Amino acid sequence: MELNLKWNMGMNFTSQMRGHEIQIDADIPVGGTDRGPTPKELVLTGVAGCSGMDAITYLKKYKITPLSLNVLTVAEQTDTTPKYFSKIHLIYKFLGTDLNEEKIINSVETSMTKYCGVSYMLIKTTAITYDVELNGKKIFTGTSSFKM
Amino acid sequence: MELNLKWNMGMNFTSQMRGHEIQIDADIPVGGTDRGPTPKELVLTGVAGCSGMDAITYLKKYKITPLSLNVLTVAEQTDTTPKYFSKIHLIYKFLGTDLNEEKIINSVETSMTKYCGVSYMLIKTTAITYDVELNGKKIFTGTSSFKM
Repeated sequence: MELNLKWNMGMNFTSQMRGHEIQIDADIPVGGTDRGPTPKELVLTGVAGCSGMDAITYLKKYKITPLSLNVLTVAEQTDTTPKYFSKIHLIYKFLGTDLNEEKIINSVETSMTKYCGVSYMLIKTTAITYDVELNGKKIFTGTSSFKM
Repeated sequence: MELNLKWNMGMNFTSQMRGHEIQIDADIPVGGTDRGPTPKELVLTGVAGCSGMDAITYLKKYKITPLSLNVLTVAEQTDTTPKYFSKIHLIYKFLGTDLNEEKIINSVETSMTKYCGVSYMLIKTTAITYDVELNGKKIFTGTSSFKM
């Protein structure tokens, strides 16, 4: 995997990979121009995206199609130098009719304990927890951990 | 820090934070539609972006303005489950005239040993190394490590 990060001006950079480009920037209060997400927002998207894709892949295998899925993702940061994520909490919000509760839970749980490489890389420094909600009702709470 | 990851279709999601939106997707050979970077490409951008911003901030303090900066970033992945980054190597390519070599090196080194929280979160599982190049000539090679 390879990318080029090109400096534009100030804290604004463009990341270039496989024909895709995304802009990153610092927020205005810390001296940026807010032309895109911050590097840590990308890492947080990486955690949510990695496990969201795992969950959808699992459900597809069982021919389960939710009406919608949103993953609300919240991180707390330390006040240390370097500043890093002390906690990440993800809330998987599934909507749909006739969805199998157990498989919905398993779709997230197998990601968070087996498949999600981004979570695996972070959990040595960051506690990652998650809730699974189905049609607005919380049906599971877990903590990311891996046996390997 | 908070974001919402919204599932669109297949492996395609939109990450929404502070008015910004970025699309992520899996690549076509693994069943995606390639509408954006993958979650791991975002994490890799996070490492490069975090330290790139640190370097520019350091140089700004000393009123040093490079003509350009590109950070070529390469990651190797394991074949394990979960699949994660075994190595990340960053090549900081500075161009410019009359740039102080020592300060150019320090701008990257202080990030990689003191300030870059993204590197700090990854180095327990991922070896992160870097080269610093000035006008095409390699002037430093280092490994990310933190005392805390």
